Amino acid sequence: MSKEIPYKIYLPESELPNQWYNVRADMKNKPAPLLNPATHKPATLEELSQVFCTELAKQELDENDAYIDIPQEIQDFYKMYRPAPLVRAYCLEKALDTPAKIYYKFEGNNTSGSHKLNSAIAQAYYAKKQGLKGVTTETGAGQWGTALSMACSYMHLDCKVYMVKVSYEQKPFRREVMRTYGASVTPSPSDTTEIGRKILKEFPGTNGSLGCAISEAVEVATHTEGYRYVLGSVLNQVLLHQSIIGLETMKACDMYDIKPDVIIGCAGGGSNLGGLISPFMGRKLRGEADYQFIAVEPASCPSLTRGAFAYDFCDTGKVCPLQKMYTLGSGFMPSPNHAGGLRYHGMSSILSQLYHDGLMEARSVEQTSVFDAATKFARVEGILPAPESSHAIRVAIDEALKCKETGEEKTILFGLTGTGYFDMYAYEKFNDGKMSDYIPTDEEIAASLANLPKID
Amino acid sequence: MSKEIPYKIYLPESELPNQWYNVRADMKNKPAPLLNPATHKPATLEELSQVFCTELAKQELDENDAYIDIPQEIQDFYKMYRPAPLVRAYCLEKALDTPAKIYYKFEGNNTSGSHKLNSAIAQAYYAKKQGLKGVTTETGAGQWGTALSMACSYMHLDCKVYMVKVSYEQKPFRREVMRTYGASVTPSPSDTTEIGRKILKEFPGTNGSLGCAISEAVEVATHTEGYRYVLGSVLNQVLLHQSIIGLETMKACDMYDIKPDVIIGCAGGGSNLGGLISPFMGRKLRGEADYQFIAVEPASCPSLTRGAFAYDFCDTGKVCPLQKMYTLGSGFMPSPNHAGGLRYHGMSSILSQLYHDGLMEARSVEQTSVFDAATKFARVEGILPAPESSHAIRVAIDEALKCKETGEEKTILFGLTGTGYFDMYAYEKFNDGKMSDYIPTDEEIAASLANLPKID
Repeated sequence: MSKEIPYKIYLPESELPNQWYNVRADMKNKPAPLLNPATHKPATLEELSQVFCTELAKQELDENDAYIDIPQEIQDFYKMYRPAPLVRAYCLEKALDTPAKIYYKFEGNNTSGSHKLNSAIAQAYYAKKQGLKGVTTETGAGQWGTALSMACSYMHLDCKVYMVKVSYEQKPFRREVMRTYGASVTPSPSDTTEIGRKILKEFPGTNGSLGCAISEAVEVATHTEGYRYVLGSVLNQVLLHQSIIGLETMKACDMYDIKPDVIIGCAGGGSNLGGLISPFMGRKLRGEADYQFIAVEPASCPSLTRGAFAYDFCDTGKVCPLQKMYTLGSGFMPSPNHAGGLRYHGMSSILSQLYHDGLMEARSVEQTSVFDAATKFARVEGILPAPESSHAIRVAIDEALKCKETGEEKTILFGLTGTGYFDMYAYEKFNDGKMSDYIPTDEEIAASLANLPKID
Repeated sequence: MSKEIPYKIYLPESELPNQWYNVRADMKNKPAPLLNPATHKPATLEELSQVFCTELAKQELDENDAYIDIPQEIQDFYKMYRPAPLVRAYCLEKALDTPAKIYYKFEGNNTSGSHKLNSAIAQAYYAKKQGLKGVTTETGAGQWGTALSMACSYMHLDCKVYMVKVSYEQKPFRREVMRTYGASVTPSPSDTTEIGRKILKEFPGTNGSLGCAISEAVEVATHTEGYRYVLGSVLNQVLLHQSIIGLETMKACDMYDIKPDVIIGCAGGGSNLGGLISPFMGRKLRGEADYQFIAVEPASCPSLTRGAFAYDFCDTGKVCPLQKMYTLGSGFMPSPNHAGGLRYHGMSSILSQLYHDGLMEARSVEQTSVFDAATKFARVEGILPAPESSHAIRVAIDEALKCKETGEEKTILFGLTGTGYFDMYAYEKFNDGKMSDYIPTDEEIAASLANLPKID
């Protein structure tokens, strides 16, 4: 049985998933619990509920329910930009002259430009349901902030975004998209918070940092009646929401009898990779099928490939719970010259555990080779990819070229998480031949890891 | 019979049109012929073939063949980003509390961000087929230049874009997208052409203009072996290629028994509006159905609503053939403060004739009310629309609100031509309350029209 595979597979709306999949339920070795940063004891629902909405805190802790119903309101919102197409990369295959079959799940066909919207709407929904007035968050490049602004606008929730000052000034487009959706965007550090005022006094003229923006957002959320803090990656709840990516993909594959051998995704905090692979990993964990999973990270920020598997802070401000994960240390500073949203020191604890258990591989790739792959892809497949997504493209191309050598007709699937329309400064650098690579030395990483918190 | 209407209708690939529709074949009053600017006699195929590819020149002159086969290579390219979805605006309807049913055909789901790609790939294909080395064009904001760069990259054709200098400097993102697709982008005026050098000498430090960029692009095309000039709107051939929009829409409507009462599109040169309405207009011309068609233009550049129906130059440089159309005069300068790609002095001769014959209506709308509609739409439908497309949104909302007053359950269909991701400076102006309206005076328009060429 082999149906002709269309260029793009769109599931009918009647086939869209109405439950998320929680891979923790099928994991023999569960991810280690979050720890209270003060007591080093497992964080309780009550503690987590002071920062997150209660329903989201429950999802964060739930390691037993395999399927969670997607509320109807969220399903309705999903229908505005989902299903995301599963695309057969016929033109890329031809350009590479490979016997491999290449597919990608394209999550960029929405105004936020990425998969981030899948979790943003869920988090906004539960906040609204809890009767909150609004949410706070931080954003660096602006992808998560944009998605959250859209979700909050739809749910009639206030949205306060703390945007790293240098991005606020250098990326006015993202900022204006957020403002158009009604969010208030504050350059961080700002004089609206205690921590912001303290930093401004100590370092006048600072460009800001993600760590500082997180601290401001958390301060406002915990000090303002009716507000909570939300986060776009790393967390278990985020991987749960993002499982919609993998569920749609798996259904489309089953429908056309597509059997992926290799599944590839870029990995920063793990939201996209975790979402894409979760249901396939479930089959692997249950012994129903086997797949090769590859996480791709930047050589400049190699948490899986060169980090330690240990408890660490999720934020540089050290106010959030401790999480056991592959980490480069919460003080690790990736080179600022390097583009992309993959510059996070840690990794989702679910993915960290799966990697630790040998169920997933990881590779690191250098930036110039990533943009080289991005440009090749754009020219034949028509979509100008986000730098983050292009990490997955790089390895997908590498794998397809290996097939060309060996003659294997592997089926390669990767996640194309988003578009690069707001990343043209990075493309400009590449087009002008001014982009460079940066790989941290062993000494740098060791120095950063020396500061990991001591947990008994 | 009433099937439940999905949020988005995607035609199956097997249902995608394999022929374009040429509305001229069904028009009783054909558009007046193009005239040679020197002799004022109808332009011949031979004359047109010096500027355009021969096959495209033939399409330009063909007023009898109702259906033209879409070459397989173009169909394959279309499959990379088409079908475009026909979207039911459930959320907008709810927000407006209208009994009207609102649909939009969304053409922005591709990296060029608009419908322009539909004609760009056709023009690049015929250029390649004729054995040309490359094509030249001009671009203002960059939408057309981006689409052409993508098409040329796919067809392995050289692409030389002359970009108005002020846009080249102020819109570096679009420029970099074009460069990523391998196009050479030259700020105009430049020292690469005779006319460019002349203008630079006469007006050192000038910001450039579309008229000047066209002149440079035409000079290079006609003076370089193996090159031709291409244009993204106004021409009959462009409306032919863009009929893919209307054909897909009509098929989706028929499939779900959707009967539009009103069909609305923004109109600059007419490429999108003409493409969307052509097949519906065909039914109207053949007496098979009736529709109300509304062209929406900016109040700052009101060619249909306040221009004259007369022969005029298509370009400010006065080197291209004369065309009979609604025009404000080729010397008309729309206010530079006003955003959008609808700032063209004339209009497609096909649409001009249909409007003149009373088969289509036209309305003009002011910029601030357009951005107000754009923002409303973005917040409920999730897509941040291009300023051009938002002209159609404005009138669609107006029509839906009328239905609310009268209680009529009209079906309103409009063309959402593209996304506004590269137009955030205009949104910023609006968000900051700094956007103003501009309506030319009767005297300004009369003065411009006084310079129309005299044709016997």
